Amino acid sequence: MNALTSPLLTDLYQLTMLQAYYEQDMTETAVFELFVRKLPPGREFLVAAGLEQALAYLEGLRFAPEDLQWIERSGHFRADFATRLEQLRFTGDVHAMPEGTLFFPDEPILRVAAPMPEAQLVETRLLNLVHFQTVIASKAAHVRRAAPGKGLIDFGLRRAHGAEAGLLAARAAYLAGFDGSATALAAPRFGIPVFGTMAHSFVQAHESEAGAFAHFAAAFPNNAVLLVDTYDTLQGARRAAATPGKLKGVRLDSGDLDALSRQVRRILDDAGHRDAIIFASGNLDEARIAALVAAGAPIDSFGVGTSLTTSADAPYLDAVYKLQEYAGRARRKRSTGKATWPGRKQVWRKLDAAGHYERDVVTVEGDAQPGAALLTPVMRGGRRLAQPALAEMREHCRAGLARLPAPVVEIAPALRRLADEVDRGTA
Amino acid sequence: MNALTSPLLTDLYQLTMLQAYYEQDMTETAVFELFVRKLPPGREFLVAAGLEQALAYLEGLRFAPEDLQWIERSGHFRADFATRLEQLRFTGDVHAMPEGTLFFPDEPILRVAAPMPEAQLVETRLLNLVHFQTVIASKAAHVRRAAPGKGLIDFGLRRAHGAEAGLLAARAAYLAGFDGSATALAAPRFGIPVFGTMAHSFVQAHESEAGAFAHFAAAFPNNAVLLVDTYDTLQGARRAAATPGKLKGVRLDSGDLDALSRQVRRILDDAGHRDAIIFASGNLDEARIAALVAAGAPIDSFGVGTSLTTSADAPYLDAVYKLQEYAGRARRKRSTGKATWPGRKQVWRKLDAAGHYERDVVTVEGDAQPGAALLTPVMRGGRRLAQPALAEMREHCRAGLARLPAPVVEIAPALRRLADEVDRGTA
Repeated sequence: MNALTSPLLTDLYQLTMLQAYYEQDMTETAVFELFVRKLPPGREFLVAAGLEQALAYLEGLRFAPEDLQWIERSGHFRADFATRLEQLRFTGDVHAMPEGTLFFPDEPILRVAAPMPEAQLVETRLLNLVHFQTVIASKAAHVRRAAPGKGLIDFGLRRAHGAEAGLLAARAAYLAGFDGSATALAAPRFGIPVFGTMAHSFVQAHESEAGAFAHFAAAFPNNAVLLVDTYDTLQGARRAAATPGKLKGVRLDSGDLDALSRQVRRILDDAGHRDAIIFASGNLDEARIAALVAAGAPIDSFGVGTSLTTSADAPYLDAVYKLQEYAGRARRKRSTGKATWPGRKQVWRKLDAAGHYERDVVTVEGDAQPGAALLTPVMRGGRRLAQPALAEMREHCRAGLARLPAPVVEIAPALRRLADEVDRGTA
Repeated sequence: MNALTSPLLTDLYQLTMLQAYYEQDMTETAVFELFVRKLPPGREFLVAAGLEQALAYLEGLRFAPEDLQWIERSGHFRADFATRLEQLRFTGDVHAMPEGTLFFPDEPILRVAAPMPEAQLVETRLLNLVHFQTVIASKAAHVRRAAPGKGLIDFGLRRAHGAEAGLLAARAAYLAGFDGSATALAAPRFGIPVFGTMAHSFVQAHESEAGAFAHFAAAFPNNAVLLVDTYDTLQGARRAAATPGKLKGVRLDSGDLDALSRQVRRILDDAGHRDAIIFASGNLDEARIAALVAAGAPIDSFGVGTSLTTSADAPYLDAVYKLQEYAGRARRKRSTGKATWPGRKQVWRKLDAAGHYERDVVTVEGDAQPGAALLTPVMRGGRRLAQPALAEMREHCRAGLARLPAPVVEIAPALRRLADEVDRGTA
């Protein structure tokens, strides 16, 4: 069984409900909507992501012979259930917000209308795909906001939750404004720019740090970013500056990044490496990056790992997929604290004169409001409609971020210049 | 490219370092150790997991033609690099703690000894696999400790970080003492018991709750767990109790689970359903479960979802894979706050007379200590040695948990009985 595409990658109850639906011929059209009930702490907005993978899943949905074999032998189902599943395909319609759209709680970002068994079965994997990428894109967009003009690279594969998480995190982060990823597979899979420097082990394996640098610079002429903190950062920076050839940059991965980046900048400049960049990494998140940016630390690019790919401060969203209509009648759930708005819905977004977000209205389908409707058709009769390329989604997200009100405190260019002059001793 | 097995599922810098190692013929034996630097808040111990998948990865490591094509065309590498990679296999030795072993910071749980390029390349995916399952097994073991004697089911696929995370979380949780998972694929893949009830949508799609219950009970005679909180929990419980046939149980998914479970228990008992179980779910974690258990809420089984499969309170560990020896010489990193102990190491564990953990000693290999050595050979020359079955690992973990000191506050059986009598009105 394919661990990424098997329809058994679902909750068992989806299958038991399916058998019951088939037995009662409950196959009329069901409408489910996917939305987030509330913002987690640390998030001002969310970014929709994962639609491309969700639609590919729906279009490819089928039970392979080995899946059906398990269904037959598991003891959980009636004898004829597997036969029925063999024919099952997803034949429904889907509306969704384009990937990269900023959204808020209670706004459906995806709506499925399909015969009940199909619409029900896909709940688990649809949520699994859309929830995760939305978690990461939302986190990445908040990091992007904290680092205007800086390079941002995803460094988090090693502590992402498995292979798919690592790979899709690279995609979601790029979509939300990161410049690329360290994950090599993200390049052939998604066309995402990939970046890499060197590890401490490379330096340690050599008899001397200077030897390691010389060796790496020779292997990657004009393109080497040297990691300078294995033993002593400032000494490492001096050795990097003295390495033969053009230096692309250095990476700092520990210690007081603000102070060290200033000292390292001076070392590089004094040695004539004014174009060499300073790359910083090591337990970075949007708060630490914002502090470094506000302090005017001369860091050009940040590598963000674990905090990004696990969305460590908010590793999940209260994302749900709820039945809103069955057989033409609106439905709702009234469970304590978990009640939902019934019926097929649309989200209308109105901008103010300055192009900033003014108001979103969630209403029943057909009740037109000022502004633009955010949910548009993306699949008809189980077939995907044309979707934008990743670069377009990325631009859509960038434009959406620009419509947020500006951060309250801004450090003016004049103040940044003064800080820079003080650091360089030219004030 | 296979998203789960491609060796491009690594950081780009592993590949750039590889090219540099080959150019300098730095192919002598490197020893790397995988360990966790510190416990996150909320964890008293960790549980090693993910070794089976890690060894399968090492044994199967090879570059497929499409991987090599990308290497050649990416522009990141020299022309002859792909030719060299075509031959690459993992030929090293691995020592590790058996899965299910409880461990603590600074204790290596896995050690790789292999020619430098091989040992370096595998860092990212090894960490990705072992880190994630260790995160989940550690979380699950803490949940298990909070719920002695209670059923525990993993409900978390929908909000797990992707497909692999959901599937491996089911495995890691089962290994650490959960009774099973809702993830269907976990059954054919790992032989894990799978469980399922019904969703709110099933109830909503019917014209009446009673009709939904009757229908589900008819589809799964003697085996139906009915979800009773879609509209009103107590009314739902009465309807479940009145459903024709034998009732396996009911599920509560919202509201005050302590109060509701007592009231629902009385409704079931009064209707003669004394064997029917009460299943609870909805934003549960070890703290909420411990509170319900301490209060004596008559809940038989808990479904734990998001908090388990994202390890929400500690979604990552400070897990690293560090070079300890190269070409026979011990190495260490001295970066600020990240220094490591050098050399090949072993962990010795001594129990006290009562069979509880007394002391672990981390020392250099060959320096025998009292107790048992925790790292044992699991792979030789790139071939896996015989490994225990999942059931054995689970028993190993159970036995390890029993060696922890007992929790400080225990609710005595007499007090539990009184609470139960009060609830049933028989006190």
